Amino acid sequence: MTDEPTRIDSLAARREQARRRHEEMKALKLSLDMSRGKPSPEQLDLSAGLMDILSRNDYKSAAGIDCRNYGIVDGLPEMKEIFAQMLGVSPSEVIVGGNSSLSMLHDSISGYMQRGVKNGVPWSRQGKVKFICPSPGYDRHFYMCEYLDIELVPIGMSVSGPDMDAACRLAQSDAMVKGMWCVPVFSNPTGCIYSEETVKRLAALSPKADDFRLYWDNAYCVHNFSGSRPQIPNILRECEKAGNPDMPLIFTSLSKVSFPGAAIAAFAASQANCAQMRESLSARIIGPDKLNQLRHVRFFKDFDGILRHMEKMAELIRPKFEAALSILESNLGGKGVAAWQNPKGGYFISLDTLDGCAKRTVELCREAGVILTEAGATFPYKKDPRDRNIRIAPTYPALEQLKQAMEVFCVACEMAALEKIADDWIGFGAEKADA
Amino acid sequence: MTDEPTRIDSLAARREQARRRHEEMKALKLSLDMSRGKPSPEQLDLSAGLMDILSRNDYKSAAGIDCRNYGIVDGLPEMKEIFAQMLGVSPSEVIVGGNSSLSMLHDSISGYMQRGVKNGVPWSRQGKVKFICPSPGYDRHFYMCEYLDIELVPIGMSVSGPDMDAACRLAQSDAMVKGMWCVPVFSNPTGCIYSEETVKRLAALSPKADDFRLYWDNAYCVHNFSGSRPQIPNILRECEKAGNPDMPLIFTSLSKVSFPGAAIAAFAASQANCAQMRESLSARIIGPDKLNQLRHVRFFKDFDGILRHMEKMAELIRPKFEAALSILESNLGGKGVAAWQNPKGGYFISLDTLDGCAKRTVELCREAGVILTEAGATFPYKKDPRDRNIRIAPTYPALEQLKQAMEVFCVACEMAALEKIADDWIGFGAEKADA
Repeated sequence: MTDEPTRIDSLAARREQARRRHEEMKALKLSLDMSRGKPSPEQLDLSAGLMDILSRNDYKSAAGIDCRNYGIVDGLPEMKEIFAQMLGVSPSEVIVGGNSSLSMLHDSISGYMQRGVKNGVPWSRQGKVKFICPSPGYDRHFYMCEYLDIELVPIGMSVSGPDMDAACRLAQSDAMVKGMWCVPVFSNPTGCIYSEETVKRLAALSPKADDFRLYWDNAYCVHNFSGSRPQIPNILRECEKAGNPDMPLIFTSLSKVSFPGAAIAAFAASQANCAQMRESLSARIIGPDKLNQLRHVRFFKDFDGILRHMEKMAELIRPKFEAALSILESNLGGKGVAAWQNPKGGYFISLDTLDGCAKRTVELCREAGVILTEAGATFPYKKDPRDRNIRIAPTYPALEQLKQAMEVFCVACEMAALEKIADDWIGFGAEKADA
Repeated sequence: MTDEPTRIDSLAARREQARRRHEEMKALKLSLDMSRGKPSPEQLDLSAGLMDILSRNDYKSAAGIDCRNYGIVDGLPEMKEIFAQMLGVSPSEVIVGGNSSLSMLHDSISGYMQRGVKNGVPWSRQGKVKFICPSPGYDRHFYMCEYLDIELVPIGMSVSGPDMDAACRLAQSDAMVKGMWCVPVFSNPTGCIYSEETVKRLAALSPKADDFRLYWDNAYCVHNFSGSRPQIPNILRECEKAGNPDMPLIFTSLSKVSFPGAAIAAFAASQANCAQMRESLSARIIGPDKLNQLRHVRFFKDFDGILRHMEKMAELIRPKFEAALSILESNLGGKGVAAWQNPKGGYFISLDTLDGCAKRTVELCREAGVILTEAGATFPYKKDPRDRNIRIAPTYPALEQLKQAMEVFCVACEMAALEKIADDWIGFGAEKADA
């Protein structure tokens, strides 16, 4: 190891350079937020027409339902039709909700915990319930389970989806494994699309628990910003074919299509599951906000209207991902300090730092005024076992601010890596000296 | 009993007359619905201005919040202010929800069942949970408890509110009694207003369970249609004074103020209870529909705006109650076959038939095309022990239809009573013959 001093010198020099650049960036006193997958104001402006699309005499559905009044617990037929096309199911397999698919997910799980899957024993009375959590994944899915006293069991994610060997092993061997999180298209945060093989293996699962459910959160099914809309096998039909018709529960929403705070969510599943969902809804609401459903029906007209709208959306989102990815490539490419995916849709770039560098990178960003999602958030219990995954959300900041934020990120990421390497080398040197 | 044959003859004649009138009414082939407390289209028209009050550039709250986007889990400050005045609490004690106070009630109870009252053992792990149910009461409250596996314990209702001796006895003696339903103003269905003494005794309850909660559903607090707005002691302040600051949970909504399907619900309670509600909301939503909150803020402006609006509402509702009560009086008054309340607000007339005649009255109405709330619905498990209470909801039908429906109701009510009396007499006669 004759070049050891040289390597250390060069490392020290690179580290000092990164530190100086970080100081320069701190001096800029930026205040930028890339923490959440939040649409930008320009994206919301695409739906400006929703704001005043109803008039005082336009409150009736096609079938003459007065959308102002109580009732219609499972949503307007017109809105069911749109979601049915979006999810490739029949309108009778759809229940339309309020403004939050998260709350439909919660109510489904909470209902099974307290009442059980139809005619079954409540999950919570069977023991400690477990959910399979492909990781990195969506922090709100994980938190919801934690909140409901469900144990989170992480499994790996690859470019074709969850580690299916691990998923099968868990589901088949443990009757307390009652659910599995799936974000099949532009997965949060990796952006991967489940392969045909993955979907078919999921549909053919033989879970030990006969009240096991696949939570199929298809939040990004129309959110391709580069290339065409991904086609994956229809989970409802695949599960039917595999003899598991009641296993999948599909969720989606228009939250990132129209207004995140004021859009429409939907649930799709077998008739038996829809019946149970209707029963559960009847215990907690008299009806969803049908006027807001009518607003969306008037604005988009049909599913083609949504697809056309999403083409305009893609024009706003694509440049941001391109800029972010290009800055990552030019600053970190080939340096061996980070690896990331190039997503073609969704809301995130998932990046892995060197092991043990994610928390430090996020901290260095924060010191320079750039807020990222907390390191670890993409793993159950917020514990990234290798402390390496960072979720970057490029949509909300304006393009110029995004570029600044990504420059800061690259400096922080490299600086954290160099600190880590230096520490390891010093540790290595110290060990040698001791020997 | 020398006049027995005469009485039976006269009874038989009256019964035959009622039967003939009922046949005439059946021939009219009416189709009228008085089953639910549903506003009429004219009432909804009062809020027509809500439909298009926002414009494409009007989406920011006073503090500059973009109401279209994610966030603000506990609602817009402006909307909190309005509800705070409505409920006589401070804005910091208010959480603004979506379109359903029923769902806030459900989530509160369901949350305590699964997670417990802050730092406590989940209700569901302590044994069979019981709720005190003043009856007759609101059917959806009762069903929600049944759905969540809570035992319903009925107690009586008088013109001054729940039977407080019974309430105290139950709450003080049984640690599994965890809640009590209260609709303190224009109670559903009796229309009574809790007296000052009732409210103070409720506030001073010494429940055996330290995680006992008062579910204070103040749904009708601005729904006076005759006379001024009832003033009752503030339950939050009374409970503070009595050393029970965390006992009351207040719920209300604008469902019957603006649009039942598309209004705003609210929750008010101590800071500790608000904090737990916020935590629970964070597990199930990213935020409520803030655009709809903004719509209501723009339309009503402030609480005075709501009061002015409710004066117009009263003008539409009062004639219907007056007509219904006048028909009851002129057809059934003094006959000893029914007793009812004369409410000054709310949505219902609660009527007691002779014991054992409610189901038959509802059946006879249905035969003549008039749908009433199912008999028994106002009692836990839909079991009215004396089969006598009927809830009449006069707001939805147009005035002329309401009058027809009430005429049918009176005929049905009298006919059911005469059938019952005749059966009893025949039974009595038969017994005598046997003797």
